[in-house]
Amino acid sequence: MDMKAAVMREVGKPLTIERVQLAPPGPGEVLVKVEASGVCHSDLNSLMDESTPTPSILGHEGAGIVVEVGPNVRHVRPGDKVALSWVPFCGVCPFCEQGQVHLCESAFGPMFNGTLLDGTSRLSQGGQQMYHYSLLSTFAEYTVVAERSCVKLPDEMPLVQASLLGCGVATGYGAAVNAAKVTPGSSVAIFGIGGVGINAIQGARIAGASKIIACDVKPKNLELARAYGATHTVNVAEQDTVEALKELTGGYGVQFAIDASGNTNAGSSAWQATRKGGTTVVVGAYHPQKQLSLPAGGFHRVGKTLKGSFYGDIHPLRDIAALAQLYLDGKLMLDELVLEQIPLEDINRAFDSFHDCNCVNVGRSVIVL
Amino acid sequence: MDMKAAVMREVGKPLTIERVQLAPPGPGEVLVKVEASGVCHSDLNSLMDESTPTPSILGHEGAGIVVEVGPNVRHVRPGDKVALSWVPFCGVCPFCEQGQVHLCESAFGPMFNGTLLDGTSRLSQGGQQMYHYSLLSTFAEYTVVAERSCVKLPDEMPLVQASLLGCGVATGYGAAVNAAKVTPGSSVAIFGIGGVGINAIQGARIAGASKIIACDVKPKNLELARAYGATHTVNVAEQDTVEALKELTGGYGVQFAIDASGNTNAGSSAWQATRKGGTTVVVGAYHPQKQLSLPAGGFHRVGKTLKGSFYGDIHPLRDIAALAQLYLDGKLMLDELVLEQIPLEDINRAFDSFHDCNCVNVGRSVIVL
Repeated sequence: MDMKAAVMREVGKPLTIERVQLAPPGPGEVLVKVEASGVCHSDLNSLMDESTPTPSILGHEGAGIVVEVGPNVRHVRPGDKVALSWVPFCGVCPFCEQGQVHLCESAFGPMFNGTLLDGTSRLSQGGQQMYHYSLLSTFAEYTVVAERSCVKLPDEMPLVQASLLGCGVATGYGAAVNAAKVTPGSSVAIFGIGGVGINAIQGARIAGASKIIACDVKPKNLELARAYGATHTVNVAEQDTVEALKELTGGYGVQFAIDASGNTNAGSSAWQATRKGGTTVVVGAYHPQKQLSLPAGGFHRVGKTLKGSFYGDIHPLRDIAALAQLYLDGKLMLDELVLEQIPLEDINRAFDSFHDCNCVNVGRSVIVL
Repeated sequence: MDMKAAVMREVGKPLTIERVQLAPPGPGEVLVKVEASGVCHSDLNSLMDESTPTPSILGHEGAGIVVEVGPNVRHVRPGDKVALSWVPFCGVCPFCEQGQVHLCESAFGPMFNGTLLDGTSRLSQGGQQMYHYSLLSTFAEYTVVAERSCVKLPDEMPLVQASLLGCGVATGYGAAVNAAKVTPGSSVAIFGIGGVGINAIQGARIAGASKIIACDVKPKNLELARAYGATHTVNVAEQDTVEALKELTGGYGVQFAIDASGNTNAGSSAWQATRKGGTTVVVGAYHPQKQLSLPAGGFHRVGKTLKGSFYGDIHPLRDIAALAQLYLDGKLMLDELVLEQIPLEDINRAFDSFHDCNCVNVGRSVIVL
């Protein structure tokens, strides 16, 4: 079929709106009419670095309506509302078989090669192949994705809000709920109040934490954190964070810390600010050349856990569906995360907003198709 | 009552065999006739450093027979065989209430002050107070301990073997079973084949691991490791350990690593040698001035867990009893851990063996009383 899409032709250059051809879904694949697509900072990163083969169609947060299913598709059918996940786990690799489907090794090769799971592309233009992005390519009117990328949504779920579930919301929420396993009544510190951190706060709130302490350098971000459920804030630029967190927790330190800052100093502080037996989850991306350094003295004795978390340790089908239900139940805030709704033609404006903002981006521009 | 005990009078000096007075058990306390006591490297450390108040009676691995119980003691009675645990958890502190009884804060003050839980001593000599050690003081014919230090044993459990359960065996076994949560069919690397490491191997073996890879610098220790269940060995001094472990696991890395070496380089290697989503448990004591340094690049993406483990994350009553049963079932090797049985009078000879041996001490001299 012929459709409109935002095409990445060159690294660092604005996307161009073009007509593109999309082949029908193969076995285990689904044709989805994209209704809304979030614009994530990772899309911008992929536009700016050399990792993405071109020409390609970016976009990895989306929701839409199933139009057609390929052979052997069983759990969605035409007309279904779906949110999309960029880790269509294989179910049989050494990670999937341990239930760590978010680390599925079968998904990552195709992801970086710009194809679907079978190593081929459904995208082309005048016979020339184009590349998929993150197995989703949601900056287009339609997309062909793996069935395992499709999370069936309740009919009453609005698709603009649903489009945010599959990446930043899942990653932050899952860091708190799946990775840290925040417990009711507990104390949690969140470092770095951006798109992931704010949803880690939501996860901690929904999991029933009693003290949710937002840590950031920007007063504006700390204020925002309170709107999403932070009960206390610590300005990392002005206070001794470890001491402040201990003071807020009767001298013990927090039970859980989540570092969404991407800063190794924050990671080290997070670890030091957890109490004996506490858990620190690192969800932000650290600089590749840095080391994460922890005081070794008494390391075994304090019995603490430090854990990297990718994609919120989610099982996409289970957790993204649960997030949609939490929204419908009035427990998960999504409306507030939609900064603006813009048409596909204006997509480059969404990227500009990342460059312009002098605060960490919390919400998303949503492309409405 | 009047009894014979090995007394520490001065730091670094041999223990002396003396007559000592022991007051009757108070509320929640139990008088135990010590039948056997392991000699742990921590006893030697306490003899050599300045941390132990004197005069005191060392010894924190023991087993014996209950002679008398104080008021409000419910779960043991005279005649019961018991193994002793040096963490008589309080049940009500912030750590106990989360089920992390091995981190109980109520036990540590008295432990370092040389008293029982109520802050007083039952030990004296001619009216002069003496100090308890690790709430146990097993280098004596009798001891008064907290009820919660008493793990009731099956009648058929031999007490020499039982005396080893409450420290090194529990710590190593628990590092694998409780902290790492080794799963059947999995791959496990153990760094540092000493008293703790060898029991981590036992834990991994009992938990059903398929590949148990011992890592050490000494060929003799690696050979010993095989006797306890290691299926493969890596000589850390001769091989690139991370590469060797990856090669042994199809290029992935091990699912679990346990660092019982006390060496931060080994800890870093252990973390690097685990596969995506893997777990590293640090159970050895690192040098207080060192830092544990981990490559920060991709830390979140690999989804690994790093965990300090103290006292094997055990619940003493549950796990020490389980260890006794595992021995009786023929699953846990303890006979092999008893290096020699010596009378209390020869206790200093047990310490000498630590000084003399040019390998990490795996088994224990057991004092038989």
